Amino acid sequence: MIIFRVHLIILFLFLSIRGYSQERKEINFPNLPGYLTLKCDFHIHTVFSDGDVWPTIRVQEAWAEGLDAIAITDHIEYRPHSQDIPSDHNRSHEIALPLAEQLGIILIRGGEITRKMPPGHLNAIFVKNVNLLERESWFDACKEARDQGAFITWNHPGWKVQQPDRTLWWNDHTRLLEAGLLNGIEVVNDDSYYPEALRWANEKNLTILANSDIHGPTGTTFDLEKSHRPITLVFAKERSPQSIKEALMNRRTAAYHRDKLYGDRAFLAPLFLASVEIRSELPRLENMQVKYIGVHNNSDIDYKLKQRIPSIGFTASPLLTLKAHRTTVLEITGTSDEVKNVSNLKLYYEVENLIVAPGESLPVVLEIQNF
Amino acid sequence: MIIFRVHLIILFLFLSIRGYSQERKEINFPNLPGYLTLKCDFHIHTVFSDGDVWPTIRVQEAWAEGLDAIAITDHIEYRPHSQDIPSDHNRSHEIALPLAEQLGIILIRGGEITRKMPPGHLNAIFVKNVNLLERESWFDACKEARDQGAFITWNHPGWKVQQPDRTLWWNDHTRLLEAGLLNGIEVVNDDSYYPEALRWANEKNLTILANSDIHGPTGTTFDLEKSHRPITLVFAKERSPQSIKEALMNRRTAAYHRDKLYGDRAFLAPLFLASVEIRSELPRLENMQVKYIGVHNNSDIDYKLKQRIPSIGFTASPLLTLKAHRTTVLEITGTSDEVKNVSNLKLYYEVENLIVAPGESLPVVLEIQNF
Amino acid sequence: MIIFRVHLIILFLFLSIRGYSQERKEINFPNLPGYLTLKCDFHIHTVFSDGDVWPTIRVQEAWAEGLDAIAITDHIEYRPHSQDIPSDHNRSHEIALPLAEQLGIILIRGGEITRKMPPGHLNAIFVKNVNLLERESWFDACKEARDQGAFITWNHPGWKVQQPDRTLWWNDHTRLLEAGLLNGIEVVNDDSYYPEALRWANEKNLTILANSDIHGPTGTTFDLEKSHRPITLVFAKERSPQSIKEALMNRRTAAYHRDKLYGDRAFLAPLFLASVEIRSELPRLENMQVKYIGVHNNSDIDYKLKQRIPSIGFTASPLLTLKAHRTTVLEITGTSDEVKNVSNLKLYYEVENLIVAPGESLPVVLEIQNF
Amino acid sequence: MIIFRVHLIILFLFLSIRGYSQERKEINFPNLPGYLTLKCDFHIHTVFSDGDVWPTIRVQEAWAEGLDAIAITDHIEYRPHSQDIPSDHNRSHEIALPLAEQLGIILIRGGEITRKMPPGHLNAIFVKNVNLLERESWFDACKEARDQGAFITWNHPGWKVQQPDRTLWWNDHTRLLEAGLLNGIEVVNDDSYYPEALRWANEKNLTILANSDIHGPTGTTFDLEKSHRPITLVFAKERSPQSIKEALMNRRTAAYHRDKLYGDRAFLAPLFLASVEIRSELPRLENMQVKYIGVHNNSDIDYKLKQRIPSIGFTASPLLTLKAHRTTVLEITGTSDEVKNVSNLKLYYEVENLIVAPGESLPVVLEIQNF
Repeated sequence: MIIFRVHLIILFLFLSIRGYSQERKEINFPNLPGYLTLKCDFHIHTVFSDGDVWPTIRVQEAWAEGLDAIAITDHIEYRPHSQDIPSDHNRSHEIALPLAEQLGIILIRGGEITRKMPPGHLNAIFVKNVNLLERESWFDACKEARDQGAFITWNHPGWKVQQPDRTLWWNDHTRLLEAGLLNGIEVVNDDSYYPEALRWANEKNLTILANSDIHGPTGTTFDLEKSHRPITLVFAKERSPQSIKEALMNRRTAAYHRDKLYGDRAFLAPLFLASVEIRSELPRLENMQVKYIGVHNNSDIDYKLKQRIPSIGFTASPLLTLKAHRTTVLEITGTSDEVKNVSNLKLYYEVENLIVAPGESLPVVLEIQNF
Repeated sequence: MIIFRVHLIILFLFLSIRGYSQERKEINFPNLPGYLTLKCDFHIHTVFSDGDVWPTIRVQEAWAEGLDAIAITDHIEYRPHSQDIPSDHNRSHEIALPLAEQLGIILIRGGEITRKMPPGHLNAIFVKNVNLLERESWFDACKEARDQGAFITWNHPGWKVQQPDRTLWWNDHTRLLEAGLLNGIEVVNDDSYYPEALRWANEKNLTILANSDIHGPTGTTFDLEKSHRPITLVFAKERSPQSIKEALMNRRTAAYHRDKLYGDRAFLAPLFLASVEIRSELPRLENMQVKYIGVHNNSDIDYKLKQRIPSIGFTASPLLTLKAHRTTVLEITGTSDEVKNVSNLKLYYEVENLIVAPGESLPVVLEIQNF
Repeated sequence: MIIFRVHLIILFLFLSIRGYSQERKEINFPNLPGYLTLKCDFHIHTVFSDGDVWPTIRVQEAWAEGLDAIAITDHIEYRPHSQDIPSDHNRSHEIALPLAEQLGIILIRGGEITRKMPPGHLNAIFVKNVNLLERESWFDACKEARDQGAFITWNHPGWKVQQPDRTLWWNDHTRLLEAGLLNGIEVVNDDSYYPEALRWANEKNLTILANSDIHGPTGTTFDLEKSHRPITLVFAKERSPQSIKEALMNRRTAAYHRDKLYGDRAFLAPLFLASVEIRSELPRLENMQVKYIGVHNNSDIDYKLKQRIPSIGFTASPLLTLKAHRTTVLEITGTSDEVKNVSNLKLYYEVENLIVAPGESLPVVLEIQNF
Repeated sequence: MIIFRVHLIILFLFLSIRGYSQERKEINFPNLPGYLTLKCDFHIHTVFSDGDVWPTIRVQEAWAEGLDAIAITDHIEYRPHSQDIPSDHNRSHEIALPLAEQLGIILIRGGEITRKMPPGHLNAIFVKNVNLLERESWFDACKEARDQGAFITWNHPGWKVQQPDRTLWWNDHTRLLEAGLLNGIEVVNDDSYYPEALRWANEKNLTILANSDIHGPTGTTFDLEKSHRPITLVFAKERSPQSIKEALMNRRTAAYHRDKLYGDRAFLAPLFLASVEIRSELPRLENMQVKYIGVHNNSDIDYKLKQRIPSIGFTASPLLTLKAHRTTVLEITGTSDEVKNVSNLKLYYEVENLIVAPGESLPVVLEIQNF
């Protein structure tokens, strides 16, 4: 039988990579001055809690979908497969780690403290030993996580199962915040956006996150052909776990969900400006004449612009979509004789799908050379 | 703690369906006279052997991809996850069964007898207790399977790991065949087609199969947007496990791989004819005139036609692709004065991607009314 | 030189079909009891007025896009290309006719009476000689059209260029209506929907139309991969010009624009019911249990359902999208013990994108057998 | 009536851009050292010869498809629409010019000298007055073109209508070549590739061209979603008509057809190298170990690599497709102990779809840092 086993090992040596997704689809957002724009997902499950896939699949998915970093965060207190899979809380991370290193995916150790509301579900990432987080008291679990150096997040704060009527902030969250045990909040979880979470992030200096909370394969949960999983953009000094943690602790993030970004204007404004390039052809705009401007968008997101203030001396489209990786034609029509003497035409828009606060979009100015 | 667990159960009650693929993409092939055309995959792995997903995912995938029946066939002798998952050989089937019943997917119990070559890997499906197939001798394992009523298949006969130079038929396969322990053969496995297997199926009366042998999620292994997993079409009297077994035992199948079908002309010919509809518009074809014919293909496969014999009295395109779910225009040009008196114009093609033997395509005749 | 020309003709004989779109994408809507569902576009331009393509292209486009009938309706009073193309108003129809006959596209002769508002632009189709419609007075032009047997439509009644502030009904339209010179109204033109037009169609017994008003090639104006041009569905007794005219005169139409249909519930209700098929698997629904229902939609449109009234004894998704050519899973959960004795479960929805009046959707009932 | 016309002009002022394709899909190929990579199509028809669209449509299409320059080259001797369109040979260029200037498309004046074989069809571009090319003798027409400064191309040399059996070089082509009246040759025309033309281009120092020869709208002739029209890549010093002519006269081009490029290795080699970026992750490759290499392709073309020579000390995939805008994982496996001391691993491939001569692909070396 031992010989038999050896034979089998040889037979299957080359199987290890079977079924591998061989191509990586990069996510295109420009870097910001001084920072790399890293693409991260900090909330992921496997068969080791109530997920449906083996841990290595999470690394393969992350690689194929263009991510830089992920955290596997299996539930600590909820393990419906434990009859078949009795392993400990560090195991899913350990299984995934070798492949992550080979593919250059940054794998962050984490676990999900899974309680009824309040305080609901909390993710602790950058921890050292998840087993020690299995505590009777959720407060003790959070303290243990912090002692291990954790970044702690309140997950899906508006989840209907736990907050069926209203998305509330509880005293227990204040207690966590004041004890330094709450660093971030999921503004987006799975396919849900929580406007209250964005407001609290702004008011209470919490870091904005968008995570997938994926249980099944990503390909059956999200439309990866046309869209992407929820992603936290992290503006980090380097591509390393330490730099990601430093950026998270200093709130340098944005939440990327479907065709929207949620974040502070300090990051969304330079991201937008680095994404677009304006190309002005002949001739100089004159009264009663039309001039075509090409606006190229090198990012993966369609920017949806809406005029804030009419320009003086010319009219432009009140609505304008700058499609991803396309050049969009913008028509402007002169309405005064003076316009031909203006060398720098300004258009005042807001970007409807770059959201800085609930109900509030990013204002931008497009400047066009007229010559 | 008991109360706590109860709370958790309630919290997660509604989670069971999270991440569910909510839409089923039907596979469109016509039924044949007297038979339903069922879509099946009889070779599938889960985390319980060397696969990467939980068994219920296999049911969800099958439902979403339009299948009627699947068999989960985890390796019996090769279980690299057994350190974490020590359960028995029937467990993956049992976990998947309740969801299969709810979604109307026919789930067939099976296992893969996994040996070095010869005889390589053999699937036994329609068995009752997979645990009893764990035997020192592969021949004994096959006998046990037969005693349980199994349909037995030789899997991926040309797999490079086991047959690196040539795809050979070994004495051990003759021994199995003569003992009534070999019923079918995979002409297609994963993304590989084995022409030798098609030849042997024809010569030795083995049933033709196309199976996925899927280990990872189907969505990362196959291009489900534009294509499909390998599928065995089963021409069954009813949609039931018994009818599927009866059809398999009587060789009423075809192998569906990418844009090709492999099978006996007794099934491919009526399948093609039931797929196409010919629409002839005015005017009657005359000498030196062009007539447009619309040929509609209601199946999911593009039929690639190549002229076998020129027609008399008119010319037609020597190559013609009938795209799936499209009407293709076929131009015919009169080359004799007599053609206007012919009421039934015949075009002689072969369908290059309907394959009845290695190197041999299905011949067909398109008949066009001329009036 | 004569010989030279003969050579050229031979050289180009086979060119006539170059650049031909060889495939037709059928538009899938079910027929209604007693009526065929024909797909039509009654407002189309060519280079003979201010369009950009040769008339035969309009036939090729119609064939490739799955239409049954079109009308070329070049402007009578506006011909910006007349310096280069001085031909008369019947010419574009005559050039397109032979190809239409060969491809089985019903080509209806028409012209667009093109005036300032009121009355704006009016289409006259089913006319015999468009040249006679070139009259000083638009009223005389309409009378001439009626004398020729025309069906007359008010085009794009809310066009911003002519009605910049509000979409108004003018006395001149009442005058036309009372004189029997107004039969239909464009509820959809190009990419615009005019709710006022839908209201007027209902109030004044006008026929509902959706037309493309296409000037450039359809492929650069509409997204033909994912969507379609605006189309008038005509519920006709036969596939003939006479039957189309009879159906138009009797208001048996619906307007198909993007993912919406506008029309009378007498036609939208049977269209929806003929599009969906409900498949109920085991087991019978019981209290606290979940049952999955498959709902298949065989049409090209995604139906967006919204619950009108909660059902008794069970809950179901308040929102449900039945994707085109997909089977969607509908989960229902028992909430009473009696539900297992109900053999016919009823779900009350409205179909948000089937619109019978401004702001009013089609109500439907889905009935599910419970056994 | 004059007042009436004025009204109409105002009504339609804003119509001029209706139906406009508003987005430009850029074509992504890197620039070469010292040269811009411009995308051009030098063979295009309109309704002014036997094409099907108005000249402005050709500019809109070029802009939307990411081109830098086009030439409209209507047939001089073949004008089947002349009964309806009697205008002269310069007219189509003149109609298209204003829009080209506004959109920044370089529009080159041209005409197609259209004769039976030999010499067949010849394009003269960069001419000043096309009317003067209407001559009894094709040789005189070419001389006139040259006197106007033309670049002259032999079009579709293997066109079946003119060369039904073999693609032959005739004495008349030698005569043109020796008189300095033949500069380039279409290696690709419409959807046909002519290997003889590539051979002659290499042997006789002719410029390699790929042109669309488009007659209908591009969107119905080519699959613009997934592919592109045939394009001549021009490696020009500047983006100007003069620089394009200089590059054409000096053979700095490549032919881009479907997923293939045809050209001189002097241009294809740096184009490939500028397209790919190699990313090597940890760990250093050792014997019996696997190392994953990410190879990113920033161009629009999938590069299909085939191993020419096995590497020493490690194995790699013999076939490798570098998909456009994707990072592909390349697995290498150590097969010797010395490999860990090699700091620069070399892989020897040829790029099967970069073609430098009939049957001959571009050889390349991928260099991987091993540390």
